[in-house]
Amino acid sequence: MEKGSTLISIEEAQNLVLTCSSLATILLEVPLTDALDFVLANDVISEIDIPPFRQSAMDGYALKISSEKTYTVIGEIKAGDHANPPLKNTETVRIFTGAPVPDTADAVIMQERVAVDGTRMSPQMPLVSEMNIRPRGSQIKRGATALEKGTVLKGAHIGFLASIGVTTVTVYKKPSIGIVVTGNELKAPGTPLEYGEIYESNGTMLSAVLRELGYLDTAITTVIDDYEETKNTLAAAIKKYDVVMVTGGISVGDYDFVGKALKAIGVAEIFYKVKQKPGKPLFFGKKDSTAVFGLPGNPAAALSCFYIYVYPLLKKTEGATQTQLLRIEMPMLEDYNVRGDRAQFLKAYVNGAHVQILGGQSSAMVRAFGDANALVFLPENTTIVKKGTPVKTILLPTK
Amino acid sequence: MEKGSTLISIEEAQNLVLTCSSLATILLEVPLTDALDFVLANDVISEIDIPPFRQSAMDGYALKISSEKTYTVIGEIKAGDHANPPLKNTETVRIFTGAPVPDTADAVIMQERVAVDGTRMSPQMPLVSEMNIRPRGSQIKRGATALEKGTVLKGAHIGFLASIGVTTVTVYKKPSIGIVVTGNELKAPGTPLEYGEIYESNGTMLSAVLRELGYLDTAITTVIDDYEETKNTLAAAIKKYDVVMVTGGISVGDYDFVGKALKAIGVAEIFYKVKQKPGKPLFFGKKDSTAVFGLPGNPAAALSCFYIYVYPLLKKTEGATQTQLLRIEMPMLEDYNVRGDRAQFLKAYVNGAHVQILGGQSSAMVRAFGDANALVFLPENTTIVKKGTPVKTILLPTK
Repeated sequence: MEKGSTLISIEEAQNLVLTCSSLATILLEVPLTDALDFVLANDVISEIDIPPFRQSAMDGYALKISSEKTYTVIGEIKAGDHANPPLKNTETVRIFTGAPVPDTADAVIMQERVAVDGTRMSPQMPLVSEMNIRPRGSQIKRGATALEKGTVLKGAHIGFLASIGVTTVTVYKKPSIGIVVTGNELKAPGTPLEYGEIYESNGTMLSAVLRELGYLDTAITTVIDDYEETKNTLAAAIKKYDVVMVTGGISVGDYDFVGKALKAIGVAEIFYKVKQKPGKPLFFGKKDSTAVFGLPGNPAAALSCFYIYVYPLLKKTEGATQTQLLRIEMPMLEDYNVRGDRAQFLKAYVNGAHVQILGGQSSAMVRAFGDANALVFLPENTTIVKKGTPVKTILLPTK
Repeated sequence: MEKGSTLISIEEAQNLVLTCSSLATILLEVPLTDALDFVLANDVISEIDIPPFRQSAMDGYALKISSEKTYTVIGEIKAGDHANPPLKNTETVRIFTGAPVPDTADAVIMQERVAVDGTRMSPQMPLVSEMNIRPRGSQIKRGATALEKGTVLKGAHIGFLASIGVTTVTVYKKPSIGIVVTGNELKAPGTPLEYGEIYESNGTMLSAVLRELGYLDTAITTVIDDYEETKNTLAAAIKKYDVVMVTGGISVGDYDFVGKALKAIGVAEIFYKVKQKPGKPLFFGKKDSTAVFGLPGNPAAALSCFYIYVYPLLKKTEGATQTQLLRIEMPMLEDYNVRGDRAQFLKAYVNGAHVQILGGQSSAMVRAFGDANALVFLPENTTIVKKGTPVKTILLPTK
């Protein structure tokens, strides 16, 4: 990276990430039951009315409203029956929830509001036209849009699409993501540490966070601090993956080869360094259709940058209409004194009526991220935030 | 079910579900990288200090603070180096972020605040003892609890455990869940509907929602409205699974065989019917160690009941400390007129400073659940909720 790169604002950086991303062009036809977390590539049009027939909403009696006081029970219709008996004025059928209401009936009276004596049934309440009948197509009409292109399919959507008889959907391929971790100091867990070494955890963390979000086409590569190796590893990852995240090695230190390597292999720098805390040394670039993020080496900083910059790119690439994590405003639980003048993302815990900024905010500390269910955003030059002040609160994914 | 069962309150029902559940007794030892979404069955104790050595937080120069104006650069230490050179009073080493700080040094000065001329380095700012040095064990000390029993492992936790060298963790087995859907009217998507039939969607929906939450040991069985078949299917499911959810067939209708079948096979009713909307005909019972939920047949009602009652049971069974979905208070976006006097769970959308109650609240309509990111809880006998009034808002899982 150039030493002279100017710091840009968070908003600029976020916009640059999104405007540089290109929508996935590979569409997949997947069985509905495998479509969870995928994004619809087309509007889904309902091919049927739901309900597909006039449906009883109650256990009771179907009849044609008349001035009669009593009706003769001539049969029964339960859910799944195909019967459609013509009813005369004084006739009724016992009917159950979900059953088709005869065309000749215009009301269903619930069983709790009738008197029955053998085959004689007397309503005990006033009858209203179409009472307790779900009209055909009242949930969705044939030809109507059931779900829109860009919808990220959740469990409820899968259920809804099943209800209109959908068996397959067209979705965007999800981006594949290569994770490159750099550093001579990194040892794999399970081997003893020598003096000066630490356990590799950024790759493991990012891979787990991606899996949590439903991105399964990922791989971690570890590379030592060697220029040629860094260059070759990054070039291979950029060729193979839609998105590459590299952690560490992006500062100006003499042994940080990532910046030089990215330049050498033709990754165009879109920005380097953002006016924020943590994550100031964030790099974003592009080569061909691959987006390349240089994330900070400190795990908590890397994870913040992931949620604020990488997550929206992944969502946009796969065609989601909603690309950001949910942002709400919540009042602070207690006073908070701000350190530094940069805009900040702080690990926080939302519960009840307030949001609390957690301890352990150092960018080297990822522990607090486990306790956090949100990030609080404080704009630059904030000095103190008083208890009760509403703050921008970004909700982290939860299960 | 008995016709005479009394309606109980939501709080009572929630408590009964939780007090009846027994903690999973099967423990699994899983590789850390497969442990996402599992719950820790033991405290994890750190076997090392993190950082394991005094670590430089900056690219700069390590030295022993003295009255000297200039120091001689005698070497360099980069991340991953094992060097620990003894420094004399007038000596310094070039050092990089993450590198071990020599035992004889008591400060690191950042490279931006020094003047360098060949091997001569002059600090350009006052030196403070231990500046820019992360003390050994400052993130976590050897012997300290890294994560507590009951923690649901998220991506950040996985990263944190990797950083202390953990390779396997002991977790609770997740509950297995059998889904039984009942009804003659149900056809599988992909086959044409005859008059009176609808597509089966509850099973597909619940299975997808469970997968979304990380529960993979699930299966759907469909059974027609026949007493013997219902009894056999339920008996088999109760024998096989930790939790059984049956949808439909639980009302008093003459063809609702579920209640009778559950009684016949010895499922003890713990409650039936809850003072709530939707989901009034919710059944909960137990046989041996299997919890049995009779969920409403209407998909949106079934899904509400899942999040409010089944979700906490699953979490408690697998040992999670936090068993409920996150509850916050949010002001209403607009006035809302309440229908009915029962306590209600309403599909809602939280964004920015407000929560909005969505259209399409009918319990037959599951579409609105797709748009929802929350459920608003309104206590019984609420008639109108004014714009700006804070309401209890239950956040649904998001990715």
